[in-house]
Amino acid sequence: MALETGSTSAATSATTSASTSATATPPARSGAVRVALLGYGNVGSALAELLSRRAEEIAMRTGLRFELAGIAVLDLHRPRRGPGAERPGLFTGDAKALVERSDVDVVVELIGGLEPARTLVEAALRAGKPVVTANKALLAQAGGELAEIASAHGVDLLYEAAVAGAIPVIRPLRESLAGERVLRVMGIVNGTTNYILTRMTDDGMDYAEALAEAQQLGLAERDPSADVSGGDAAAKAAILAGLAFGSDVLGTTVPREGITGIRSLDVEYAARLGYVVKLLAIAELLDGGPDVSVRVHPAMVPADHPLASVRGPFNAVFVEGEAAGELMLYGRGAGGAPTASAVLGDLIDASRNLRAGAHAPAPRRRQTTVRGNDELRSAFYISLDVVDRPGVLASVAAAFGSHAVSIRAMEQDGLGTEARLFFLTHVAREGDVRATLDALAAIDTVVRVGAVLRVVGADDAPARGAHAPVRSR
Amino acid sequence: MALETGSTSAATSATTSASTSATATPPARSGAVRVALLGYGNVGSALAELLSRRAEEIAMRTGLRFELAGIAVLDLHRPRRGPGAERPGLFTGDAKALVERSDVDVVVELIGGLEPARTLVEAALRAGKPVVTANKALLAQAGGELAEIASAHGVDLLYEAAVAGAIPVIRPLRESLAGERVLRVMGIVNGTTNYILTRMTDDGMDYAEALAEAQQLGLAERDPSADVSGGDAAAKAAILAGLAFGSDVLGTTVPREGITGIRSLDVEYAARLGYVVKLLAIAELLDGGPDVSVRVHPAMVPADHPLASVRGPFNAVFVEGEAAGELMLYGRGAGGAPTASAVLGDLIDASRNLRAGAHAPAPRRRQTTVRGNDELRSAFYISLDVVDRPGVLASVAAAFGSHAVSIRAMEQDGLGTEARLFFLTHVAREGDVRATLDALAAIDTVVRVGAVLRVVGADDAPARGAHAPVRSR
Repeated sequence: MALETGSTSAATSATTSASTSATATPPARSGAVRVALLGYGNVGSALAELLSRRAEEIAMRTGLRFELAGIAVLDLHRPRRGPGAERPGLFTGDAKALVERSDVDVVVELIGGLEPARTLVEAALRAGKPVVTANKALLAQAGGELAEIASAHGVDLLYEAAVAGAIPVIRPLRESLAGERVLRVMGIVNGTTNYILTRMTDDGMDYAEALAEAQQLGLAERDPSADVSGGDAAAKAAILAGLAFGSDVLGTTVPREGITGIRSLDVEYAARLGYVVKLLAIAELLDGGPDVSVRVHPAMVPADHPLASVRGPFNAVFVEGEAAGELMLYGRGAGGAPTASAVLGDLIDASRNLRAGAHAPAPRRRQTTVRGNDELRSAFYISLDVVDRPGVLASVAAAFGSHAVSIRAMEQDGLGTEARLFFLTHVAREGDVRATLDALAAIDTVVRVGAVLRVVGADDAPARGAHAPVRSR
Repeated sequence: MALETGSTSAATSATTSASTSATATPPARSGAVRVALLGYGNVGSALAELLSRRAEEIAMRTGLRFELAGIAVLDLHRPRRGPGAERPGLFTGDAKALVERSDVDVVVELIGGLEPARTLVEAALRAGKPVVTANKALLAQAGGELAEIASAHGVDLLYEAAVAGAIPVIRPLRESLAGERVLRVMGIVNGTTNYILTRMTDDGMDYAEALAEAQQLGLAERDPSADVSGGDAAAKAAILAGLAFGSDVLGTTVPREGITGIRSLDVEYAARLGYVVKLLAIAELLDGGPDVSVRVHPAMVPADHPLASVRGPFNAVFVEGEAAGELMLYGRGAGGAPTASAVLGDLIDASRNLRAGAHAPAPRRRQTTVRGNDELRSAFYISLDVVDRPGVLASVAAAFGSHAVSIRAMEQDGLGTEARLFFLTHVAREGDVRATLDALAAIDTVVRVGAVLRVVGADDAPARGAHAPVRSR
């Protein structure tokens, strides 16, 4: 293979012609690729284990041998599992020094969070060392800048594991669809919320019950707010928007609605209409582009849509392309071994490129405007708790009417002194629906505005008609 | 980007260090990549259209400009559609001369079939020109040899479009899962049969009726035998086995069973048990490898399995990996535009590599033994038409019993003088089931052996337990 037999001089000249301060000397062909591992939690120890247990197989299939040059951890005195435990000399508390050591070829960042991860990743890239990371928060915050630094220094910044764990999402979007005009990306990218919604759907559990079970199974944190609020999904939506449209979106600015307001009654009502409730991270081209919308919210997905069959802690990313049509990439979105598998794929890719003096194509950034959601048009499902008193429905209907939101269907469910109202609207402007919700909340007989769900397939998005010619069941 | 700013000398030396007779001189950085297009049917004209209509966008996103150097066709006098029609001078009847023209950088083979495609692809590779092809028959027959020629000449042979059309399958298996130990690949890779089975399942159609509709819609050929016999799927199974396990399997030798024996009654019975009938192309590691099984047959897939939701003409490839867990890649398996999109992704990849003097990692071939199916163990569904006469069931049951195949459930459906018997077996050795089927066919009161379906999930395959923790519905 040219990649591996390329002479050192050729590889070096290709790298240095790209830039700049750092000149990465590729490791000799026969030597091992020396890896600095930053962080040694679930994923880090699973990766160390894969590198050790599969060493022969990896060498046979890729021609590459990997060697851990060092493992940076915060607390040197914590007991360790995995192959690292047998070699305590590998551990160091000084991550910066490890990254800069001349015998380190590739850096794998598995610390998570913004700092010190960002400083360390930047230092590695500036030293001409490829970086593999699973850090969604960092990429959602600084992905564009880091990609530019990587590009300027002629090295890879790869992050397949940062969105949807083991599922190949980044590489297909970046390479397979390099010539494709992507219209929309919709992802189930948070396993915790998908697990909770699946239990509510399949087993009639209430939200609190399903959340408690997820916590017990280790699928939800003790403080689940980052997941159930849609915050985690928002970071991934920002990364997907960057890949699909070249948009430089900060994860923290992505509008998000979580699942805490959803009750089993909502899920049941959706099921009766032939829908499944899912939390979606969406990035889509508006009016043919270059403007885009990036957002996270729960939605009613038609039961025969491929995303509807994504259950439990699984993740999936659904892509609509102009020529390719509809694609979906499905699999495990979290967990030590699945995430380590994605990191390993990147590590092999980065090492091959390093030896060839090449690097993976950087996604081009593009001037895109991220529009707010007010002008989006969709049908909505809205549930309300009201006082069961004559005249309530009239005032509620008036709130819809005065904001030009037309009701397609309504159902009432009595509860003694209270009642629940379920509304399904015709396609409406989101800004009008928001104004309606504000007006509803201000009515004194409305006790609570419950779930608000967009209806997928009942919108003005640039989807390519029905997702399959066969829909009846 | 280093890939595109790499000096010509660096790129050339990397290429030549790999081999051999041909030294591909990469096109200058600023010049267009000149493409020879072999074949101008649905896919070829869709590709020409994409290259023309999206030229600006492709250049912006990838830094590459493409130019058609020529289009080889069989019949020069046929009227043409698409951008080619406006430039009749591009067309030639001499494909060999086009491939060898010095101003051609990359060759796209969309002729299909074995010859002359094979000769032309070989000629291109030996001339140091990367080849992108969608030709599954060629790859299933000669993929291993062609990959070796490509590798020896330091150029790419890419074929994302050959399996499952627009769906990124090849690249994820080859790159994202480069370090993964794949245990099993199960694909719905033939849109025609999946359309027919979907109509039978969703709408109670009979086989003949669904086939006729598929033919009317252009989803099935006038002579559908290559699809309904499993032959097309067998070629793709061979390609998948090569990618997942490095096995050199001839597509023509893959054991296959088609869907012609399946009736709406079988599909209904499966549905009552919670299953959906699908035609699967399977490649799996046996007993931890290196032995593999490669085969095509219809199967009963649990209704909550991700493959069960793949409907109509859609395709999907389900992968089970040791660390990655379960993955599924879903999308359009055929059609001019979707297939052209996959070809374009490869064309961009090959051109980037050509400019960098690199090439895509070749899958390592490996000594694997493809075992016959006799030792596989699975539960089976079998339907029989019998004469409705006392004692029939006893002789049928005796045939099962004497071959050590244990019956788990039986149902009888009377039809006047005939009756239908539906059997579900316990997990049994496939060789024993075959012997049972032979014995059943020899009983004179057995009018016909109908459908024979393996039950997915009720087998001894190396699957990772249940595919999702949440199964009830």
